[in-house]
Amino acid sequence: MIINRHKNIQITKFDDTKITSALDQVAIEEPLEIQLCSETEALSAAKSISVTMRTPGHDKDLATGFLFTESIIRNAEDIKSIDIVGETDQESGSKNIVRVAIEPSVEIDLDTLTRHFYTTSSCGVCGKASIEAIYNKGCQEIKSEFSISRSALIALPEKLRAQQIIFGKTGGLHAAALFDAHGEIILVREDVGRHNAVDKIIGAMLRRKKLPTSEMGIIVSGRTSFELMQKTIVAGIPMLAAVSAPSSLAIALAKKFNITLVGFLRNNKFNVYSNSRRINK
Amino acid sequence: MIINRHKNIQITKFDDTKITSALDQVAIEEPLEIQLCSETEALSAAKSISVTMRTPGHDKDLATGFLFTESIIRNAEDIKSIDIVGETDQESGSKNIVRVAIEPSVEIDLDTLTRHFYTTSSCGVCGKASIEAIYNKGCQEIKSEFSISRSALIALPEKLRAQQIIFGKTGGLHAAALFDAHGEIILVREDVGRHNAVDKIIGAMLRRKKLPTSEMGIIVSGRTSFELMQKTIVAGIPMLAAVSAPSSLAIALAKKFNITLVGFLRNNKFNVYSNSRRINK
Repeated sequence: MIINRHKNIQITKFDDTKITSALDQVAIEEPLEIQLCSETEALSAAKSISVTMRTPGHDKDLATGFLFTESIIRNAEDIKSIDIVGETDQESGSKNIVRVAIEPSVEIDLDTLTRHFYTTSSCGVCGKASIEAIYNKGCQEIKSEFSISRSALIALPEKLRAQQIIFGKTGGLHAAALFDAHGEIILVREDVGRHNAVDKIIGAMLRRKKLPTSEMGIIVSGRTSFELMQKTIVAGIPMLAAVSAPSSLAIALAKKFNITLVGFLRNNKFNVYSNSRRINK
Repeated sequence: MIINRHKNIQITKFDDTKITSALDQVAIEEPLEIQLCSETEALSAAKSISVTMRTPGHDKDLATGFLFTESIIRNAEDIKSIDIVGETDQESGSKNIVRVAIEPSVEIDLDTLTRHFYTTSSCGVCGKASIEAIYNKGCQEIKSEFSISRSALIALPEKLRAQQIIFGKTGGLHAAALFDAHGEIILVREDVGRHNAVDKIIGAMLRRKKLPTSEMGIIVSGRTSFELMQKTIVAGIPMLAAVSAPSSLAIALAKKFNITLVGFLRNNKFNVYSNSRRINK
């Protein structure tokens, strides 16, 4: 069955002089449940660990990326099998459960999901503790010599837009893409949730055995937060470029882990918040 | 201590001809932990139910709005006391734990948080089940006769922008605001997370004993998703207007619960996805 990522709906258009009826396209949003199981157990023992609202499509990539960037799995081999199950949704044609069988040798710590990792005993809940916690998960400073020219970076947003199939139709999706040192776009994913778009990218690379990838950057259509920067670090990617603004914690994380953080990449200019040495002048 | 919601940082600005060093302002992002306790227990028994990344400020409103829109509390009286505790963060001047004492008579069902509510036994995980689940939480169709003129609606984005104190400085924050039938802005909140901006609005209204409010609308600076529409329904607000696109599930929810959903409200025009009767021609 074909998976639909957008649908037609009837809307009313108002401007300051007239009212018209029109057919419009909107991005489909549907829940996705991620379940973990071991192959020796009965299927009914599968444990639901997350329900996220997402745009259907590339759901195995999304689940793999989520498990990896949340540090539940460490590499592609930790997954024994991955299946899409459940009823087929009439509207989108998608099934909405991804069931992941984990290798029995892998120790799973679901506490990282429920408690997250923003607290330490020293200073309690704070940004500094959040950064330290990422160290404690085993993430390393990124040593990559990856670099890109200023002109290639400036050309990226237009290339991203050209590849955003659904955004053009709906205006309703976030996009994330991987780019190489020449500024060529390698892989694009779109989703109603920007963290999902990044998880789909990282999951796809992990399943292709191409992570960590120190020779690529990632570009996102919106803002940069702690969460997106954390995913970038876990994937070992040395550059995160965004069309809009970064948060204070995204910048602090980028400095700590040696990531080049670019913001406001639009209209032939951009700001660099850390490690500008990776941009060739 | 004063709470800072933005900070100065040193950045490098690139355009196609030159590179300059500049001082820039970015939005502060810090974790906030919400804890529940009963006043008869020891404080050490306080239970952490959520850690969210947010912009400091209005944290009691945020926690109250979160508990209400997640249906953990039903009204302001369910909260016996609310305190901000923990170490003071050096950078923002904020403390990052909100501890909420719940009235002993209130039955708390934390399963709604961990499992969310997207699954039913009939069709499994799907958009339809997500909508049904909101019915099952006791939400009603909204019967309000609230209405607003086309010209007042068209004027709203500019009024919102004029009141976005931090956005002007950082470009990095989502905003949400309540407006009345004359198109006057009643309350504005900004946050790195758009769901937080809406929770801050709804929490502030609940604490002032002004919910449900059938005589106001809510405007958000970004897109509309299932989650934002759900919060609007729980608060009994009859109109949600957004500067950008809605998702398919946001539209389906709006139709089911009788909400007027406006999108792409910018450049003197807008689209209406449901219940256009509340807009005076």
